[in-house]
Amino acid sequence: QRAREMGIKIGVLTPGKQNAITDVKGVKVGHTTLHEGDRIHTGVTAILPHEDNIFQNKVPAGIYIGNGFGKLTGISQVKELGNLETPIILTNTMSVPTAADALIDYTLSQKGNERVKSVNFLVGETNDGYLNDISARVITKQHVLDAIKNAKSGPVEEGNVGAGSGTVCFGWKGGIGTSSRVLPEKSGGYTVGVLVQSNYGGVLEINGVPVGKNLGKHFLHDQLNDPADGSCMMIVATDAPLSSRNLERLAKRAMLGLAKTGGIASNGSGDYVIAFSTAEEVRIKPGSKYYTSTELHNDDTSPLFLATIEATEEALLNSLFMAQTLKGVSGTVEALPIDEVRKMISKK
Amino acid sequence: QRAREMGIKIGVLTPGKQNAITDVKGVKVGHTTLHEGDRIHTGVTAILPHEDNIFQNKVPAGIYIGNGFGKLTGISQVKELGNLETPIILTNTMSVPTAADALIDYTLSQKGNERVKSVNFLVGETNDGYLNDISARVITKQHVLDAIKNAKSGPVEEGNVGAGSGTVCFGWKGGIGTSSRVLPEKSGGYTVGVLVQSNYGGVLEINGVPVGKNLGKHFLHDQLNDPADGSCMMIVATDAPLSSRNLERLAKRAMLGLAKTGGIASNGSGDYVIAFSTAEEVRIKPGSKYYTSTELHNDDTSPLFLATIEATEEALLNSLFMAQTLKGVSGTVEALPIDEVRKMISKK
Amino acid sequence: QRAREMGIKIGVLTPGKQNAITDVKGVKVGHTTLHEGDRIHTGVTAILPHEDNIFQNKVPAGIYIGNGFGKLTGISQVKELGNLETPIILTNTMSVPTAADALIDYTLSQKGNERVKSVNFLVGETNDGYLNDISARVITKQHVLDAIKNAKSGPVEEGNVGAGSGTVCFGWKGGIGTSSRVLPEKSGGYTVGVLVQSNYGGVLEINGVPVGKNLGKHFLHDQLNDPADGSCMMIVATDAPLSSRNLERLAKRAMLGLAKTGGIASNGSGDYVIAFSTAEEVRIKPGSKYYTSTELHNDDTSPLFLATIEATEEALLNSLFMAQTLKGVSGTVEALPIDEVRKMISKK
Amino acid sequence: QRAREMGIKIGVLTPGKQNAITDVKGVKVGHTTLHEGDRIHTGVTAILPHEDNIFQNKVPAGIYIGNGFGKLTGISQVKELGNLETPIILTNTMSVPTAADALIDYTLSQKGNERVKSVNFLVGETNDGYLNDISARVITKQHVLDAIKNAKSGPVEEGNVGAGSGTVCFGWKGGIGTSSRVLPEKSGGYTVGVLVQSNYGGVLEINGVPVGKNLGKHFLHDQLNDPADGSCMMIVATDAPLSSRNLERLAKRAMLGLAKTGGIASNGSGDYVIAFSTAEEVRIKPGSKYYTSTELHNDDTSPLFLATIEATEEALLNSLFMAQTLKGVSGTVEALPIDEVRKMISKK
Repeated sequence: QRAREMGIKIGVLTPGKQNAITDVKGVKVGHTTLHEGDRIHTGVTAILPHEDNIFQNKVPAGIYIGNGFGKLTGISQVKELGNLETPIILTNTMSVPTAADALIDYTLSQKGNERVKSVNFLVGETNDGYLNDISARVITKQHVLDAIKNAKSGPVEEGNVGAGSGTVCFGWKGGIGTSSRVLPEKSGGYTVGVLVQSNYGGVLEINGVPVGKNLGKHFLHDQLNDPADGSCMMIVATDAPLSSRNLERLAKRAMLGLAKTGGIASNGSGDYVIAFSTAEEVRIKPGSKYYTSTELHNDDTSPLFLATIEATEEALLNSLFMAQTLKGVSGTVEALPIDEVRKMISKK
Repeated sequence: QRAREMGIKIGVLTPGKQNAITDVKGVKVGHTTLHEGDRIHTGVTAILPHEDNIFQNKVPAGIYIGNGFGKLTGISQVKELGNLETPIILTNTMSVPTAADALIDYTLSQKGNERVKSVNFLVGETNDGYLNDISARVITKQHVLDAIKNAKSGPVEEGNVGAGSGTVCFGWKGGIGTSSRVLPEKSGGYTVGVLVQSNYGGVLEINGVPVGKNLGKHFLHDQLNDPADGSCMMIVATDAPLSSRNLERLAKRAMLGLAKTGGIASNGSGDYVIAFSTAEEVRIKPGSKYYTSTELHNDDTSPLFLATIEATEEALLNSLFMAQTLKGVSGTVEALPIDEVRKMISKK
Repeated sequence: QRAREMGIKIGVLTPGKQNAITDVKGVKVGHTTLHEGDRIHTGVTAILPHEDNIFQNKVPAGIYIGNGFGKLTGISQVKELGNLETPIILTNTMSVPTAADALIDYTLSQKGNERVKSVNFLVGETNDGYLNDISARVITKQHVLDAIKNAKSGPVEEGNVGAGSGTVCFGWKGGIGTSSRVLPEKSGGYTVGVLVQSNYGGVLEINGVPVGKNLGKHFLHDQLNDPADGSCMMIVATDAPLSSRNLERLAKRAMLGLAKTGGIASNGSGDYVIAFSTAEEVRIKPGSKYYTSTELHNDDTSPLFLATIEATEEALLNSLFMAQTLKGVSGTVEALPIDEVRKMISKK
Repeated sequence: QRAREMGIKIGVLTPGKQNAITDVKGVKVGHTTLHEGDRIHTGVTAILPHEDNIFQNKVPAGIYIGNGFGKLTGISQVKELGNLETPIILTNTMSVPTAADALIDYTLSQKGNERVKSVNFLVGETNDGYLNDISARVITKQHVLDAIKNAKSGPVEEGNVGAGSGTVCFGWKGGIGTSSRVLPEKSGGYTVGVLVQSNYGGVLEINGVPVGKNLGKHFLHDQLNDPADGSCMMIVATDAPLSSRNLERLAKRAMLGLAKTGGIASNGSGDYVIAFSTAEEVRIKPGSKYYTSTELHNDDTSPLFLATIEATEEALLNSLFMAQTLKGVSGTVEALPIDEVRKMISKK
């Protein structure tokens, strides 16, 4: 069950139809999921900003680094040029090079890109090495290409799928989660969608309820002494027309959503946010002499900030609620104990 | 009443004796408070990292910018050199130049600084222009020097004092707040203290209870349509021996504490964090040939991150709980309705 | 004599009519110059991006910090919002607060700004404390307002004027310098103008001739052991339609121009660049619902980068060539020995 | 012939024995060079900071991005943690993923790293796609491992070798270059060594002589209209004990050296600098409870800044002077015309 189906309503804004990143028109998500015995639990998740050739129709983008322990590739070019030119790929830490290589293959193989000699592969990761035999590096380029190929709009699979197959969050099974918010018409009516790969720690809170504290399972708790490490990749999509500068600001707000779940961005956590706009008014079109755009004024960004915070918090909760208990290479990680959580929440 | 006296226990760590930034040994805080009729409600708050000549005994420091709408001076030199060399002054937006000027006076007047020709004045602000006739710019250099002179260890006045005299937070009266955390011995036993000047908005949450939503007073609520702007200055002190790089990381975590109160770092908010270490092992001493320091490894910083998040959240709540209803130049701003809040919290 | 009048042609591009920052249409420069006996040699330089109310008609802007030892105020808001809203003021280190205060006065006094309660004062500085009794802090708000009022288009006074009255550069008298470049029509025909306040050190080179080395006057030379410190403020204006992101990139290139004069951005140097665009196509207009702009593609920025490098190098040389020997509070600083330099250059 | 053998003496400081990055004790460099017919001209260059297990004995490091068009991996973790944990690998743009993958292999294969599950692979690149059939992606992991294995101290091969096999610089054949500077004893006697992979453009200057202008071969020249793009990777090593913060400042100065060769950091250029310190006093040792270091004060860094600028400029010139004319997949790129250059220089 997703958080909202359990009666958990995060924030004051309304989700979109799917309550998913795909509520932002044109955005597609695809997973490749690998569960093989107890040893292999990993995968790939691909996020596509639109259906066209992305390299030829770049979208404005911003990146924010909550904590830079991590191997996200492609950061500096996105920041310098203010756009992204490939699908975004999420996978495990050790498979980033393979995924990057696959993005080169993908880009070169697309019609119109025959002469491309430089590709800014954007690949994020978290470390699923507790449940998955990460050193085996089983992800292949084909797995990555499959995730891109399978990408679709509509509902998004969550939990132990794709890049979230083997991740752990607050000591419970984490994974892929997604959520969205639609702004009121008077604030523009724009949609913000978030997709996360959750693999981090801290002191879990669910809609303000101190679940981690209540269950005695949190960072610095004597029994556990969980190092709180791990990482979180967050992808923010919007149809609001924003420049790369304001998209970087949007990205920054996703960390505020993570904070509300009790995340602390620990030393060993790779917490990264990639935000992009799908709006036609800011699309970078090939062949144009100038870049003409119509974007929101700075003054009109705050509602989008709130939407990002809410959708991130809910996406992170969905990643927990939709994940399943999993036996992996170093042990078993339980799913969030739904019944206990339900009781704590109902008391609120 | 402070939050904790109302039974609100933020987080899993324990506060220090005063539950204040002054729990970090050597740190002193001083206020100059101006309340004159309905028109003037403003002031100055000074934070001193230690008792010695600060210019001659610089402390490692880091700055993090949550949202850069704001006029904090001295940012670039702290980032470049990794230290601070004056007391930190907080005041209102329009009085930053006056306070900066006063910091030059202060520094030049200290013994041993007679030949100083360059002072990196560190002055933060939030805009108290709703309750205070900010355009009158009533703060004088003497007010600033008085705040420094009055600085003391021990309990810290909170609420409508100093730089928080006229601030507004989530539509309620804000002000100065402070809190601290002491790490368990096995995590080093260090203290983290936070002091805030709260003047921001969003959707108020108190220890996870959606107070703003329940009261129908929040950003994007139809009746109010509060622009959520304003700002928040946060000062983080610790006796843990940290380099400027790790202090900047500590500073970054204060924003996660702000997030937990429902802050959204809106477009017009100046959200800045200054973190410094008072540890002798990292003090920059005059006359030494090399800079020899003993500091924590990166791996040992996460408990301090958690402490910063908790102390910031509680300091922000204290700023609300300790503030009083105030009639000012553009109207009256109520204090947080304690009884209603108490009911909401007790249901939790 | 300016560098070009001495036969020194920097680079491959052509200067504008005035070979000054004022070649960018609409840009105005004003100086207040204070020379009083041997003790006072300081002043103020104001740069205005256009003739309208700047606060109401903000221009896109970017800031780059070559080395952050220095007290430039207003940095974070320019970076966050991507624009500037006041004239740019340059003065001495100790007078930054006074100039900031004056910018508040100026802004509030302008028609249409009656209700403004927040002003992002942009004030840069270098330290003229060798020739000027900087601790006397003789600059008044009126001096700053006068510089703004006196600002005009056309030729710009250089050398020992305005904020350059008492500065020192490579051990010689520095000061204000300016230069410009006009791109070929096929590259857009845009103009880039630069104005500098030079007060830094290193190993002086003039159009590639190692003048500092030849004269035995340079950083790390035994006889002198010049600490190389000081600072350099650089203002870059262009009529090319650029976003704040690309203006920050433009700003970054000014440091490459400084490098070509032999500057090293020493530890104690405050090397800052502020770049803005005057183009109507990117002006932030009041009252518009959206921000519609037509700007250059990233791919078309390189010619502007070259123009910035060349104009900065030449502006810095002009600041030296136009400065005069000056006796000040701590001694006399000679002007560049023109005849010797002429000989070295002619041999090239 | 290297630049210095042609009588070109860059700057005022003295090179080390090899005038190479290997003058910094412990630093090793290895190349894998691929020249196959006209089609394949590429390779790998590995730089090792010391002989021990780098993952277990991390060195402080800083990264500066001159222009972020480029695919350097590992940036954010170096910046966050202030150290590097693998050899630095340079190769062509399209082979970054392969090299990253090889760095994982290398790290896992080292004694003591058996349980490592997270490796921050540091791989830089420039685009050799004019001379090399870059889309063929001929670099294998073994090529990378060979470069690491072959790494040695002493003289460093320059020109058309390793990652510089197929690069182009200012329209001439570029490649690998290196140089070093030793500070005077009174400034600490430290060594700074630089190694570059040159593949960029602008308006070539050689020790101040406008060679590009004289030869009519430069950016914005009508006949050529060279897009000036390409990139430059610069590695700075020093035995001076510096923190990561000061190493980042050192890295920043390498761009000033690039500027002196006429580089402009054009839009499409990936100009990155990685700086590290080999000093035992700042080495991050495994098993220590605290990080105790003895480092230079900020005030003592300026001589190192000058050394970095000089060594970078000379390393870039060496990359040109040591390169050979090469026929590649899209045509022939000439080596710098030594005789003509010699004449221009001798006139100086």
